[in-house]
Amino acid sequence: MEQRTLRQDADLIISGSIDAVKPDAAVKRALEGRTFPGRVVLVAAGKAAWQMAAAAHHVLGERVDTGVVVTKYGHIMGPIGDYRCFEAGHPVPDDGTIRGTQAALDAVTDLSAEDTVLFLLSGGGSALFEKPLVPLSELQDVTGQLLACGADIVEINTIRKRLSGVKGGRFAQLCAPARVYTIVLSDILGDPLDMIASGPAVPDRSTCADALAIVKRYGLTLSDQVLELLGKETPKELDNVDTMITGSVRELCSAAADICAGLGYEPVVLTDMLSCQAREAGSFLGSIALTNAGRGKRMAYIAGGETVVKLTGHGKGGRNQELALSAAAAIDGLDAAVFSVGSDGTDGPTDAAGGYSDGGTMARLRAQGIDLYEVLADNDAYNALKAVGGLVITGPTGTNVNDVAVALVR
Amino acid sequence: MEQRTLRQDADLIISGSIDAVKPDAAVKRALEGRTFPGRVVLVAAGKAAWQMAAAAHHVLGERVDTGVVVTKYGHIMGPIGDYRCFEAGHPVPDDGTIRGTQAALDAVTDLSAEDTVLFLLSGGGSALFEKPLVPLSELQDVTGQLLACGADIVEINTIRKRLSGVKGGRFAQLCAPARVYTIVLSDILGDPLDMIASGPAVPDRSTCADALAIVKRYGLTLSDQVLELLGKETPKELDNVDTMITGSVRELCSAAADICAGLGYEPVVLTDMLSCQAREAGSFLGSIALTNAGRGKRMAYIAGGETVVKLTGHGKGGRNQELALSAAAAIDGLDAAVFSVGSDGTDGPTDAAGGYSDGGTMARLRAQGIDLYEVLADNDAYNALKAVGGLVITGPTGTNVNDVAVALVR
Repeated sequence: MEQRTLRQDADLIISGSIDAVKPDAAVKRALEGRTFPGRVVLVAAGKAAWQMAAAAHHVLGERVDTGVVVTKYGHIMGPIGDYRCFEAGHPVPDDGTIRGTQAALDAVTDLSAEDTVLFLLSGGGSALFEKPLVPLSELQDVTGQLLACGADIVEINTIRKRLSGVKGGRFAQLCAPARVYTIVLSDILGDPLDMIASGPAVPDRSTCADALAIVKRYGLTLSDQVLELLGKETPKELDNVDTMITGSVRELCSAAADICAGLGYEPVVLTDMLSCQAREAGSFLGSIALTNAGRGKRMAYIAGGETVVKLTGHGKGGRNQELALSAAAAIDGLDAAVFSVGSDGTDGPTDAAGGYSDGGTMARLRAQGIDLYEVLADNDAYNALKAVGGLVITGPTGTNVNDVAVALVR
Repeated sequence: MEQRTLRQDADLIISGSIDAVKPDAAVKRALEGRTFPGRVVLVAAGKAAWQMAAAAHHVLGERVDTGVVVTKYGHIMGPIGDYRCFEAGHPVPDDGTIRGTQAALDAVTDLSAEDTVLFLLSGGGSALFEKPLVPLSELQDVTGQLLACGADIVEINTIRKRLSGVKGGRFAQLCAPARVYTIVLSDILGDPLDMIASGPAVPDRSTCADALAIVKRYGLTLSDQVLELLGKETPKELDNVDTMITGSVRELCSAAADICAGLGYEPVVLTDMLSCQAREAGSFLGSIALTNAGRGKRMAYIAGGETVVKLTGHGKGGRNQELALSAAAAIDGLDAAVFSVGSDGTDGPTDAAGGYSDGGTMARLRAQGIDLYEVLADNDAYNALKAVGGLVITGPTGTNVNDVAVALVR
């Protein structure tokens, strides 16, 4: 048998699964085996736009006729062929947003039905890809009114889509008759397509009636121009769109499962929608490890998603560190490990991506005079894990598709 | 395909798995295929002693030469052959305890190496099977001192075993040279044998040195007689004992798994040591159902143990009801169910054994104007589940081996 430690296995699983959901790997996978009959116009928008566009350029090279990239300030890492690259404001759109988006709109006019718009979308796309139909200041005023009266995100988007020339399916409408192939790098649990960047290339489910009901419900004060725009319907059907979600937490989990299998563990993907408290998720995964450890079978239980931290103290940590540390008591003395990482490489306000506990963690804590329950009550997982070599440090990864937690038993 | 609803499947799983861990079924399973060469003396102690003894009598009949039963007041349901049945105090031992235990000790003297003591142990055995070596009042004083100075349960047992003529392996020592076959009906997570009834028939891991260190640590004020007893070692090895743990939460889970398999679900026993917050366990199981529902495969995810309720309100409920209701949001609209029951048939201060949610629960709650999050914040799962037909009612079951929660997906 191999001589790797559980920690070595954990590090292989962490680095391999994050690599699989990096923008370049995800875009390459989404383009595999695809051919495009006519012209290809590439439009990339979002915080990972540069990486996605560079990966597409690597795969497609000269097949791309025109490329436009709009990303956040400081996110252009160099030229990509002869693509036009724009940096813009995030989270508040600015002139850069408008110039970049207009360049994209110019590139997709006059296409034929054989042509393809390759639309690469990542987090932040809602601010970075925008053509307001009213002045930016008025858009900000409307958003401010909605936030002030407690409107929820669905209500806010219902209004904002109608004040935009590209959101709510309108970008795809402008691309027609060309086909739009959207590759989405998703960081939203469960992948609701019309929420990602307010869905520039998916049919809109909200209606003008919904929008006017919201105006009435909250008594919004709106200009005539805005009221007129709220009466203009967004596309309810789009026959020229095709969407591939990639680099999602689901792929993060399935990559983790593949790597676990390669290391000799039988993988069980429990969920890719975890949303409970970090501490309790750690306890649950610890219980799973406790029941299954030492039965002569290597198992890997995988749970992806995004837990929440219940703040009860003033220590330093993050949800992944808290989850991993919380499992330590259950797996004390066992040939088992529980670890959890954020795929973006940052967990809470720390330099760690997450945390790692195994059967020796409790003994190491005790040897340092650290009380697990005091640490958890103070939300101070970072310092406790640091003291016992339980931090997972990856540095920023360039991707962001939520977290993955794994319980390994042998 | 069969036409059963998820609720019907749930009810079959619940009743079948609880039946499998009832004292009579558990004892019958533990006696299956066993033969005893010489005389057989039956000693049953604990809250389920009568049921266990009656089941053994049913299987062994005339093979039992002498039977002694010690159980809690009100728990003798009738005569069993010519067994001597005693009722006694619980949780505080009384004269009944001492008379019953002495009758057992009388029955096991003068046995030969071919003979067997069939020792049937259940919850409450620590109080119900006891022969104090000091007056009861002094035993209570020592225990009171230990509790007052914050000693933990391991420390308390280390002292108390040495003040007992039957605990810490001493009962088995008195039975020698006869063999002791112990059948334990366990309600303790993880089944630590020397903790169940303070281990009358298992070697004691604690030492006299441990006991004296505890006296020193807490500055206990003890009589000369007690100090002398603390210097007498308990058995560290017993070559005449054989122990079978039955009716444990592990068997509850494995029975649930068997029934799920029979109903066409692929069972996955996640854990039999669940101990996290009920609400968060429900969220976790809901996430598992959400990820796995609708994938064309019937799956049953099983988690046994005992969750805790974090009280934030003043409503009516129990940990199993809260767990089941907490999962409702995640499985809304899906062909999935999450349910949880206490094997004793009572969950919190209610007449329900637990709760059941499925893909229609949220709609039924909405139709009644019930807000899930308000209900959970008020710990009022009972009334919400009652309104939507989500209570599980079994009545008292006569067994108590913790809880089992199941997520079914189709």
